[in-house]
Amino acid sequence: MNMMAFEFDDDVVIVDCGVMFPDAEMLGVDIVLPDLTYVRENRERIRAILLTHGHEDHIGGLPYLLEEVDAPVYGTPFTLALAHSKLVEHDLAEDTELREMQPHAHFQVGPFQVEFIHLTHSIIQSGALAITTPLGTIIHSGDFKLDPTPTDQQVSDLHTLAEYGKRGVLALFSDSTNVERPGLTPSERAVRQRLGQIMGDARGRVLISCFATSMHRLQIVTDLAYEYGRKLCFVGRSMFQNSEIAMQMGKLVVPPGLLIPPQDLRKLPREQVAVVIAGSQGEPMSAMARVSVSSHKWVSVEPGDEVVLSARVIPGNEKAIFRMLDHLYRRGARVYYQDGSQPPVHVSGHGSAEELKLMLNLVRPKFFVPIHGEYRQLWRHMELAKELSAVSQESFLLETGDILEFDEHGARRSGRVTVGRTYIDGGTLDEVEDVILKERRHISEDGIVIPILAINEHTGLLETPPEIVSRGFVPLEEAPDLVESARDVILRTIEKSNLEEVSDWGVIKEKIRTALRRHFSDETGKRPMILPVILEV
Amino acid sequence: MNMMAFEFDDDVVIVDCGVMFPDAEMLGVDIVLPDLTYVRENRERIRAILLTHGHEDHIGGLPYLLEEVDAPVYGTPFTLALAHSKLVEHDLAEDTELREMQPHAHFQVGPFQVEFIHLTHSIIQSGALAITTPLGTIIHSGDFKLDPTPTDQQVSDLHTLAEYGKRGVLALFSDSTNVERPGLTPSERAVRQRLGQIMGDARGRVLISCFATSMHRLQIVTDLAYEYGRKLCFVGRSMFQNSEIAMQMGKLVVPPGLLIPPQDLRKLPREQVAVVIAGSQGEPMSAMARVSVSSHKWVSVEPGDEVVLSARVIPGNEKAIFRMLDHLYRRGARVYYQDGSQPPVHVSGHGSAEELKLMLNLVRPKFFVPIHGEYRQLWRHMELAKELSAVSQESFLLETGDILEFDEHGARRSGRVTVGRTYIDGGTLDEVEDVILKERRHISEDGIVIPILAINEHTGLLETPPEIVSRGFVPLEEAPDLVESARDVILRTIEKSNLEEVSDWGVIKEKIRTALRRHFSDETGKRPMILPVILEV
Repeated sequence: MNMMAFEFDDDVVIVDCGVMFPDAEMLGVDIVLPDLTYVRENRERIRAILLTHGHEDHIGGLPYLLEEVDAPVYGTPFTLALAHSKLVEHDLAEDTELREMQPHAHFQVGPFQVEFIHLTHSIIQSGALAITTPLGTIIHSGDFKLDPTPTDQQVSDLHTLAEYGKRGVLALFSDSTNVERPGLTPSERAVRQRLGQIMGDARGRVLISCFATSMHRLQIVTDLAYEYGRKLCFVGRSMFQNSEIAMQMGKLVVPPGLLIPPQDLRKLPREQVAVVIAGSQGEPMSAMARVSVSSHKWVSVEPGDEVVLSARVIPGNEKAIFRMLDHLYRRGARVYYQDGSQPPVHVSGHGSAEELKLMLNLVRPKFFVPIHGEYRQLWRHMELAKELSAVSQESFLLETGDILEFDEHGARRSGRVTVGRTYIDGGTLDEVEDVILKERRHISEDGIVIPILAINEHTGLLETPPEIVSRGFVPLEEAPDLVESARDVILRTIEKSNLEEVSDWGVIKEKIRTALRRHFSDETGKRPMILPVILEV
Repeated sequence: MNMMAFEFDDDVVIVDCGVMFPDAEMLGVDIVLPDLTYVRENRERIRAILLTHGHEDHIGGLPYLLEEVDAPVYGTPFTLALAHSKLVEHDLAEDTELREMQPHAHFQVGPFQVEFIHLTHSIIQSGALAITTPLGTIIHSGDFKLDPTPTDQQVSDLHTLAEYGKRGVLALFSDSTNVERPGLTPSERAVRQRLGQIMGDARGRVLISCFATSMHRLQIVTDLAYEYGRKLCFVGRSMFQNSEIAMQMGKLVVPPGLLIPPQDLRKLPREQVAVVIAGSQGEPMSAMARVSVSSHKWVSVEPGDEVVLSARVIPGNEKAIFRMLDHLYRRGARVYYQDGSQPPVHVSGHGSAEELKLMLNLVRPKFFVPIHGEYRQLWRHMELAKELSAVSQESFLLETGDILEFDEHGARRSGRVTVGRTYIDGGTLDEVEDVILKERRHISEDGIVIPILAINEHTGLLETPPEIVSRGFVPLEEAPDLVESARDVILRTIEKSNLEEVSDWGVIKEKIRTALRRHFSDETGKRPMILPVILEV
């Protein structure tokens, strides 16, 4: 959930607003957003939203942000095109001003002069931001690697970074994702080599699954399909949409006649097609997951087909992904994934330790702040900076919400802003409150028991024996003794209470809850949620 | 959940009976056991349980198995010692006959002649089984690597494997865990080198977390602590128990005076102690997890301390482990974990591709069955066997439950036995039924809504307006309109039903459930579990 705000006096610019996909612990949650309290409190001061690139963890929260604040959005043409399709879905496109950023073109936002600096990454038109304030220039690296041989020949703009470094940079905020990897991240070109070998040797269909935003990867597969005389097919909603956008912008070049629609796949011999398919993370409803269980409308795999997972296995998704790959193996496909063999079927879009060092040495800032990573990665990026003499004054390990203040005397931590997570239910796009999640977690551990009491409104006495229903707990129909003893516990609890207590439903409910909790814990060792209901009849 | 049965005529031996730790999807489940239906159905035929080694995924299910079957348990002394402490916990120790297996000593179980063959693994006294039947010899590899320089000098018994290979082996069942790794798995000795560097350079406390069954690792740390003049302390219940067992058996040698109890840690300067601590997988209540959040009674970390995670990061545990490591970083510790740097802080106990090839080439069986691994790993092990000329007849990719039949004409698949998972609640040791898990999963996604109707037993009419309570759904107190409209839906459903339907509670409940499901889906996009309750008053 990458998001950062830069303030100068009364003006604020926001860099990125991403989403995160939920952990298994976040029951029934589909999207996680940053808590936007700071944005709401500073709504009037926000002058612009700057996007470094078009990945979900940098732009996914944009529609939610734009519901809170009215400010222009800056991004490269491809980033804005991806953002635009999101805004259309949320019915926000008409009210939002999208402004294109181009490398080398400076623009002013209040007191901030901004320049976009092209850097290589797994998505095209990605880069760093140089934000110059009256106090000095801040460089925000975005996500980057320093690929010397990118597929589109657009190497990183090291010259501009060097120039800023020469003039003097107040602070560098730099990507820490791959700080644990020594050396250099392999070039995207390495993937071309491997995919070429696979396609060259293939005698059946070739399916390649990658992120739908990986335009380099899509271009590589397109080129190889052409080279090896295969028709090309994009499968999956995101894959189709993003390839359309990229083709329209000239950022994905597909020779005429190469592309076929999924419904034509069956008309062609298997050895004459290459399929690029969404769902590399094993998402249950994705095209690739459906293919793996033979439930996709147009695409199937058969013995002799080749399937390539040309993507990172995101931690947390291992089980879903490998379950999917196992299904593909069972169907007789030969499956390729990142198993350490060389050349690789996937390379990272983030620079390794030597690239991070080069960034530090080029920019040589007064102050350095590692960003984008877990605590241990930020820590190791700090350690790595210490090995160099690139940072002339100080490095800060900031956690989400920390404020870093700069002035003519230097820089220092100065308090925190409200941060956190906002959980969104994908079906409704509504927020899922913390209390609801806690309830789900409690019930999901030991189930729920609902004792129901019908009390006569005139006499204050029970009309019928207490009713007890449950779900996710022990099956009560198989445990009549447990139900009977629980009824006894309820009756005894009522008997032992005085009239005031019985007539105060809050009190009697709590007493019943406490008594039953102890009873169930003793009898079953479980701690179900207990939800007493009183009906006045 | 490793478990296999070998049948010959009327006799059966079982090899291993492991447990699995649950996925996040298995809500409220603590242990997963193999379905023991086959065992129950063949109870009278089972002559012995053979254990290859003492890891949880090979012996954890033993107590549950022994509740079903009365047969002697064979294992090496260390394996039996670990099994024994489990049996004591389950009050089964007295009724179980434990028989020691020693390398080179043959013993007879019905028609099976069995020999234990020592192989190196991350736990001591681990090995393969040669099970000779009138049809020929079967070799079950257990879990193994072929470490040329094990810490206890007990190299794998390649000679016995070679001898069987020379005489002729009917079938080899071999560990596939690390088939995806090229080359050879590094020797346990590599870890000694790295831990020695860390301890040599340390100026504060050194904490090393590993599996409590890793006696090699415990011996290495013990030796290093002695070498570097540090007192040694074992922390965590499993670590304490297992080290006690190993010391009593002479399998962990600790110089006199080296060991201190945890409560003495505070009396010694930080640079004079080394701590071996349980909880390498970030288990919430483990010693290491408690240290990481400063809530352990005796152990803490401070700036300048060193913490080593000398264990594998088991897939599925990444988040818990790295969250724990981040807490340790925040407390100022220097943290070491498996990040690819050399020499490693942990090495695998499973052989890589070249070791698996050597096993195949030594044993050169007629038939080969890859075991221990996910489908893709079994598949790759089959591929690897194809590269060699070691298997003279055929390889079989079997999935859990498949039967492979051997006779004088060869081998073939012949049907399946009932297999599956049995979910155990750790608090109660009771089985958690599938239906209960499904209920929890349903509620955990969208919550539960309970509409309650009090119906007059004489008139068949509602006594009061329907009551509606919910948990894990939208907070109803904030949505009075939703409650009101749901009440209307219930009332309309009852109105539109005829008298027979209303008096048949099963029918009317189902009609209310259906109507409310549609209503909530339309209004909220959610599909909570709906559990109508009717009270007769």
